[in-house]
Amino acid sequence: MNLPLGYRYAATYAGIRKVENDDLALIVSAMPAAAAAVFTRNQVRAAPVVLAERHLKAGKGQAGAILVNAGNANCATRTGMEVAQETCRAAAQHLRLPVTQVLPASTGVIGVEMDARKITRALPRLAASLSESAFDAVAAAIMTTDLVPKTAFAETGGVRIAGMTKGSGMIQPNMATTLGFVMTDALLDATVLAGILSRQNELSFSRLSVDGDTSTNDTLILLANGASGQKPKPKVFEEAVGDVLQSLAQQIARDGEGAKKFVTIEVAGAKTDADAVRIARAIANSALVKTAIAGADPNWGRVLSAAGNSGVAFDPAKADIDMQGLPVCRNGLAAKFSEKALSKKLAAAECLIRFTLQGKGKGTARFWTCDLTHGYIEINASYRT
Amino acid sequence: MNLPLGYRYAATYAGIRKVENDDLALIVSAMPAAAAAVFTRNQVRAAPVVLAERHLKAGKGQAGAILVNAGNANCATRTGMEVAQETCRAAAQHLRLPVTQVLPASTGVIGVEMDARKITRALPRLAASLSESAFDAVAAAIMTTDLVPKTAFAETGGVRIAGMTKGSGMIQPNMATTLGFVMTDALLDATVLAGILSRQNELSFSRLSVDGDTSTNDTLILLANGASGQKPKPKVFEEAVGDVLQSLAQQIARDGEGAKKFVTIEVAGAKTDADAVRIARAIANSALVKTAIAGADPNWGRVLSAAGNSGVAFDPAKADIDMQGLPVCRNGLAAKFSEKALSKKLAAAECLIRFTLQGKGKGTARFWTCDLTHGYIEINASYRT
Repeated sequence: MNLPLGYRYAATYAGIRKVENDDLALIVSAMPAAAAAVFTRNQVRAAPVVLAERHLKAGKGQAGAILVNAGNANCATRTGMEVAQETCRAAAQHLRLPVTQVLPASTGVIGVEMDARKITRALPRLAASLSESAFDAVAAAIMTTDLVPKTAFAETGGVRIAGMTKGSGMIQPNMATTLGFVMTDALLDATVLAGILSRQNELSFSRLSVDGDTSTNDTLILLANGASGQKPKPKVFEEAVGDVLQSLAQQIARDGEGAKKFVTIEVAGAKTDADAVRIARAIANSALVKTAIAGADPNWGRVLSAAGNSGVAFDPAKADIDMQGLPVCRNGLAAKFSEKALSKKLAAAECLIRFTLQGKGKGTARFWTCDLTHGYIEINASYRT
Repeated sequence: MNLPLGYRYAATYAGIRKVENDDLALIVSAMPAAAAAVFTRNQVRAAPVVLAERHLKAGKGQAGAILVNAGNANCATRTGMEVAQETCRAAAQHLRLPVTQVLPASTGVIGVEMDARKITRALPRLAASLSESAFDAVAAAIMTTDLVPKTAFAETGGVRIAGMTKGSGMIQPNMATTLGFVMTDALLDATVLAGILSRQNELSFSRLSVDGDTSTNDTLILLANGASGQKPKPKVFEEAVGDVLQSLAQQIARDGEGAKKFVTIEVAGAKTDADAVRIARAIANSALVKTAIAGADPNWGRVLSAAGNSGVAFDPAKADIDMQGLPVCRNGLAAKFSEKALSKKLAAAECLIRFTLQGKGKGTARFWTCDLTHGYIEINASYRT
């Protein structure tokens, strides 16, 4: 897959996390890029989230670099804003950019002071090692409890799109995911870019939940530097961006903490898409549905009950549920199915739950999550220790 | 503890559940009792919930008996309403009551047809064995995944109150818990009783979550048969009812599926009590907070982040958090504390998290939950199989 033109990448170990894996990275555009971003809706927002938003505004939708670290969220920290500002300033100097063109992002533990010097000391070697081919190294450096790096690519009408994301727990992005960066060499202005990101985020990261917890650091950035010289057809280009974002969001669900199964929830027949999303989210966030999936138990009653708790009004007698393509509930009642055969199908690594309301409703949604297993408990009972 | 006068109880094994533990029970008042009830807010409501509400209305707030079974929720069943009606009719005949004075309640698996004959066949021996002392037998018969029966008692001004409840998973009662029955021999009219139940339910069962899933069968019934001949002082009596309900709700959290720790969340300084409850509920339902507690990890950042997701607007810089009485966060930042010492304290069987917003807000809430452990996964990955 060809990477977008005009971007360079670098990653290094700056000593922010204990394990000696890269934890600091730079993404740099050769020319100012149009930039759009969406951020967490959590009331508690990390310093880099606040600063990135401020820079984006001050830079009038133009950005030249993303400075990102893992191992420390720089959230609920006394020196958080200073550290974010100081490290952005240092990066801007090394890259000869206005400071507002550096967008910061952090992920990791909350409430631990971050040492700016670890970053400023690493910056010279980081800047010196920038290369067009280190895309994967950055995707690896932003991982926390992730087991695998997550990237997605597209190419359409002479422009290239390359995205990366991270995330495994504290995942119910309400705007974006914990961290996601998408670069393209298409020529687009920032307003158009913001519209594309907003719409496509709604259909990707906003349709994802691992554990129902929205993080304090969610940041999704889309950069378009125009290096290809091509103005793509808006519709086709937006679709390609959507494909990349959906692939990234799905990869997070697949790598959800402790996840053994990737679960897709499809809802149809709701009054509106928003209603369909609410139902899908309620099903995805039900601990009882997620543990039933882990146990390959076709317990559709839990799916119906979870939908009933979504806050969306519907008539249970008009609810149909399918699992792995088999009807398990019709008109709110048990359909005839072989429990043994379905249980076998549910043992697969991918599960599909369809919830359909009979009638004229046109609202639909696709939503992604994972099962809830011992692995999740294992990881989260001892995250910091 | 003295039981309220004028009630008789019976329990038997009717073959509804596989394990040969009692699964059918009767609570009968010697005289028509004023009755009040609150039911689940889930859109999906089991037949006995619908019928109990209908009977209560038709009986103008008077009831003579509660007919309850475990092992089958009689929810999302083709024959659900018929079964509920037929079994209530049979009970009414045996007890010589108008059918509207029999309140049905069911708990167990959803979506499996219930065989009315199992209940009607057991009713003669059940009615024949009614006794004033079988209160505990009924409390045991309504258990599902519960490890222990849950009862609470009070006595005030010459009247007695005795309550029982069941519940361990699918617990986030939004009105009531899965099943709760409280009997008193106080002399009260149904309207007064309804007010007491509504207010005290708000402060007890509505402040409880094990896994964030509201069941389809939640039913909490309060009976007052006047057998004591005493009209208690309203305020004192309501307090006693509140004590019983709070004790029952707390017992459910203590016995939450897989729970090793009982967790109390106290919120203060919110604008309103309702805001405080929302913040407390968000903390209680965070899988990340619950696993941190399981791991005795003083990860207050997760508490702050969960509060930030509650939908209640607040300034994180004015948030204080205490765990086990020790300050862990002040002004939204880490307080100085010994992680080792606190981790030791968090290994206790009871945990207290206090979340306080500085300022003039008078809104407070107490909320109960439990930790999230391997046991929860174990139980719920194989509930039906």
